[in-house]
Amino acid sequence: MSRALDWVSRVIVPLGDRSYEVLIGPGLVGAPSSYECLPGAGDAMIVTNQVVAALHLDGLRRALAGRYRQVHVVELPDGEQFKDWATLNRIFDALLRSGCDRRTTVYALGGGVVGDMAGFAAACFMRGVPYVQVPTTLLAQVDSSVGGKTAINHPMGKNMIGAFHQPLRVLCDLDHLATQAEREFRSGLAEVIKYGPIADWSFFEWLEEHVDDLLARAPAALAHAIRRSCEIKADIVGRDEREGDVRAILNFGHTFGHAIEAGLGYGAWLHGEAVACGMVMAADLSSRLGMIDDDTIGRLRSVLVRCGLGVHGPALGPDRYLELMRIDKKALSGAIQFVLLRGRGSAIVKTAPEPIVREVLAHGVAV
Amino acid sequence: MSRALDWVSRVIVPLGDRSYEVLIGPGLVGAPSSYECLPGAGDAMIVTNQVVAALHLDGLRRALAGRYRQVHVVELPDGEQFKDWATLNRIFDALLRSGCDRRTTVYALGGGVVGDMAGFAAACFMRGVPYVQVPTTLLAQVDSSVGGKTAINHPMGKNMIGAFHQPLRVLCDLDHLATQAEREFRSGLAEVIKYGPIADWSFFEWLEEHVDDLLARAPAALAHAIRRSCEIKADIVGRDEREGDVRAILNFGHTFGHAIEAGLGYGAWLHGEAVACGMVMAADLSSRLGMIDDDTIGRLRSVLVRCGLGVHGPALGPDRYLELMRIDKKALSGAIQFVLLRGRGSAIVKTAPEPIVREVLAHGVAV
Repeated sequence: MSRALDWVSRVIVPLGDRSYEVLIGPGLVGAPSSYECLPGAGDAMIVTNQVVAALHLDGLRRALAGRYRQVHVVELPDGEQFKDWATLNRIFDALLRSGCDRRTTVYALGGGVVGDMAGFAAACFMRGVPYVQVPTTLLAQVDSSVGGKTAINHPMGKNMIGAFHQPLRVLCDLDHLATQAEREFRSGLAEVIKYGPIADWSFFEWLEEHVDDLLARAPAALAHAIRRSCEIKADIVGRDEREGDVRAILNFGHTFGHAIEAGLGYGAWLHGEAVACGMVMAADLSSRLGMIDDDTIGRLRSVLVRCGLGVHGPALGPDRYLELMRIDKKALSGAIQFVLLRGRGSAIVKTAPEPIVREVLAHGVAV
Repeated sequence: MSRALDWVSRVIVPLGDRSYEVLIGPGLVGAPSSYECLPGAGDAMIVTNQVVAALHLDGLRRALAGRYRQVHVVELPDGEQFKDWATLNRIFDALLRSGCDRRTTVYALGGGVVGDMAGFAAACFMRGVPYVQVPTTLLAQVDSSVGGKTAINHPMGKNMIGAFHQPLRVLCDLDHLATQAEREFRSGLAEVIKYGPIADWSFFEWLEEHVDDLLARAPAALAHAIRRSCEIKADIVGRDEREGDVRAILNFGHTFGHAIEAGLGYGAWLHGEAVACGMVMAADLSSRLGMIDDDTIGRLRSVLVRCGLGVHGPALGPDRYLELMRIDKKALSGAIQFVLLRGRGSAIVKTAPEPIVREVLAHGVAV
């Protein structure tokens, strides 16, 4: 237990009376201090998936027993293709069948899909109950568990139906990353790398130096990468919780990436794999618009390749890409809004001339 | 047009930067002033049902044309039994198929079911777009369109899945009430009557004197009843938007009422019909607990009977009533929370001994 306390980093997401802490360290789930000051009058409902449950459910259940009247569990199938209404409804069914009331605390134990669905269920159940994020994947620890975005997919677009609902706390237990499958882990690195070009070029340079340590899952390197990622995200979310403007830069690579995910069918590519490609395409677009130099793209591409991430999108055809991007949530009146780099460590949201976007699609796609 | 301006009453729902106005008067939908200061950069999506559309859609569509880039319409089937996910999803499908973006304004044109679903769709579409309530039934004008509660039903309980999402404005056009079916109109009177016993006994006495005017739909009486109802609701919502405490008294009659609706299957009884019975049962319970005298119950029952509303619940059996009430949203750790009257014009939320609740169920139910 004390080992957890020696190590723990705390990042505050500054949102007034909805502010909360992201705790980062090993052994967090088992440490009593991780749960200090959380409300405990009602029941707890752990939402997880079958794969994560086999690895990590017992630990969380043990930690919560005695803190809540009862601890219930609902296990969802694993995969982005299940991030839909039918699966969400299994959470509502479990909450109601277990007799959960408004004082219930939902625990999201899993990756981004579990976190998004558990958070959205918590946002809607009886018009809102509190929840805690316990992200078990790198992607969820550095990105999706922080900032209160929750959603399910619609056949016509990713994350189209959802809510802003901030968690009470985020517990990034580094021990969980030891068991993550290699492909999922590498996919998560895409979201870590994202923060460099848009917000902190020195962090990107640190990543260039430490890619091998991260791939070896060295705890000190992981802890730094996760903390810095969460700090950048917390700062941006604190300035623009509901994505009026600033927050949209966190979607660097996601305009192209979401089109890839929707175009191939959810689950074919992992989210981070699609975002990795999308970042290269967005950087290419930035370069063609004269906003960054070739060296910047080259270095971004190189780090992604060293992480084993693909940098060429699937050949959906340019028309299909454009069609899918026009229903992205950032689009306005049918005009696609791209997150573009302007120099190193800075990004902006803007439209781009369609012929230049088509050039990117012609060059950035596997043939 | 100027006639609308002569008549309009304004009630402010005081919620800081989410404050908004309820406008009450004849001819409101056609008056340009009704739409002043509403955002108009994107499209409008009118959500309505087939019955309301035949009567009132053209008027609203004409008023919105020219104010928005495009005006889209989605028509839902009519009835509480359709207040579910499948119907809600038709709104999301329509929004996405029409190319609606984050700047879309949703217009809810209809009764409580349409308002709850359109509002919930607006709360969730792209994580939240603005909406305007255009309630066409008495029940919606005096209650459900004001206060930002949105929801769909779950087979295990009414309004179990939803959000707090305040509208930009509420337009209570008295002209809409002229065409409302008699049964629905009388059902709406139950929610008007509700405000007297819980918050303003002098309003109840006014209702006793003006029941016949209201049943005749006399405009002056309607305008007063709607304005006073909205004032009371706005005051309570302003003090407790998310139903921490005070707001729960608005659910007078709803603990029993929701059990009736769920027990019979949604749509068998109208919401106001179930609430009317539920108020008599809750008043009976208050009386058995020594909180009000028999005269108060008698006067409440008498006004409801004059409105043609039933005052005896269906014979679901006491165990079934109790089971259904335990999953009411107000229940805590399985303990049913009743809204009880304490004297005239005042209510409180509390539990009650089960044997006394069973007495109420034995006496207050048709055999």
